[in-house]
Amino acid sequence: MSATMSPSELRRRIRSGEWTTPTSGAATGFLQANLVMLPASHAFHFLLFCTRNAKPCPVLDVLEAGVTAPAIAEEADLRDDLPRYRIFEKGELQEEVTSVRNRFQPDMVSFLLGCSFSFENAMLAAGLPIRNIEENKNVSMYITDRQCRPAGPFKAPLVVTMRPMTPAQAVRAVQVTTRFHLTHGAPIHIGDPADLGIQDLNRPDFGDPVTIHPGEVPVFWACGVTSTLAAISAKLDLTITHAPGHMFVSDLKDEHLAIL
Amino acid sequence: MSATMSPSELRRRIRSGEWTTPTSGAATGFLQANLVMLPASHAFHFLLFCTRNAKPCPVLDVLEAGVTAPAIAEEADLRDDLPRYRIFEKGELQEEVTSVRNRFQPDMVSFLLGCSFSFENAMLAAGLPIRNIEENKNVSMYITDRQCRPAGPFKAPLVVTMRPMTPAQAVRAVQVTTRFHLTHGAPIHIGDPADLGIQDLNRPDFGDPVTIHPGEVPVFWACGVTSTLAAISAKLDLTITHAPGHMFVSDLKDEHLAIL
Repeated sequence: MSATMSPSELRRRIRSGEWTTPTSGAATGFLQANLVMLPASHAFHFLLFCTRNAKPCPVLDVLEAGVTAPAIAEEADLRDDLPRYRIFEKGELQEEVTSVRNRFQPDMVSFLLGCSFSFENAMLAAGLPIRNIEENKNVSMYITDRQCRPAGPFKAPLVVTMRPMTPAQAVRAVQVTTRFHLTHGAPIHIGDPADLGIQDLNRPDFGDPVTIHPGEVPVFWACGVTSTLAAISAKLDLTITHAPGHMFVSDLKDEHLAIL
Repeated sequence: MSATMSPSELRRRIRSGEWTTPTSGAATGFLQANLVMLPASHAFHFLLFCTRNAKPCPVLDVLEAGVTAPAIAEEADLRDDLPRYRIFEKGELQEEVTSVRNRFQPDMVSFLLGCSFSFENAMLAAGLPIRNIEENKNVSMYITDRQCRPAGPFKAPLVVTMRPMTPAQAVRAVQVTTRFHLTHGAPIHIGDPADLGIQDLNRPDFGDPVTIHPGEVPVFWACGVTSTLAAISAKLDLTITHAPGHMFVSDLKDEHLAIL
């Protein structure tokens, strides 16, 4: 039922406190987004970080300081319409909350960044396996040894998601996800995790481990968690992000962003 | 001969004053870019304008304030390595110069934005006609009645280039240029110019008119001149841009940016 819910109905339930869980699989076909809110004084360098690292940090929308209604969902309010937020002070996690209405400041700029939930819909439609969905787990995420290009005080290692599949399915997955360049696009690596500095696929840095069947290879995509690590790397007085998996759901269809 | 020149050799000739003409067709296969330089105080809003209007203003590189060596050509210096620049004060064109070494300020941020010369190479390789090259003219450019999404003080109408071809060639041109999403990507319109508010194809706002043969339709792409109009719309004390057609030539291959 949640899959067929409209984005506005989903956001209404989130705003009223009826929905406080992750948004994976909800309002299927509508674009979901990572959120970062930080002071306008640092907005240029954070936008520059995202521009320089567009694969993990594809910019969907940036709001002027103090504005909380995004162009991709004009009736929404970013202060209430995500099920769970994280509050960071000086780069340290302070608490998780279900509204940031009493923390958002008029000088803060909000960034909405693409999320791989969008290409997952396309992958499922193409008959490709998404193991974490099959096993009802959060996707496996790993911090790699590749550094993003820094900008001002913002820096981060590239974070990746991993989905196992057969080599033939991996070829199809490259084709399917290439179209979604604003939600991480094509994989950045197929095969040996050691090439990315990943020691053990069974111990992800975020999310859950998933089963890799015989004959399958790990396929790695750039991940939006990169933007969270970058945002808190500057140790600003106040940074607000979504809690992992608790995304902003927009009124824009996934297909609207596809390039082919 | 200029087509096979290396980017570094071309930039050396430009820097020494041996080359002062447009860069169209030079160092074929290497990415060329539009240039905008403006004060750091306005860099966030200009980057936001480009992010919000990525089709006409695809960001290739943004340099920190005072920096003039871009990542896409590390040995270059943006103050000398373009054949011709335009100096604007309060949004008004003051002069054209061949170096901005005595005008560039330490607080200025430089933006390099994608240019359609890149997909022209791919179109020619696919056997498609580029009328302005056939007729040895500058490409036809038109100001449309479509407004870009503004950001802070920056606003501009969408500017387009036009290349005439048969409908079958237009289909192929869509396929070929879609790959180059950082150099304007697929066309934004095929057919009736009135749909874009263009009154007369024989009177372009920039560049030259070209011949349209019987059976051909006009095909329109977003154009980087949009970024110049946006930059000067804020009427800042000082804005520097390239002169039309006199682009920055990078060390990056066109194909490096192609997504498929």
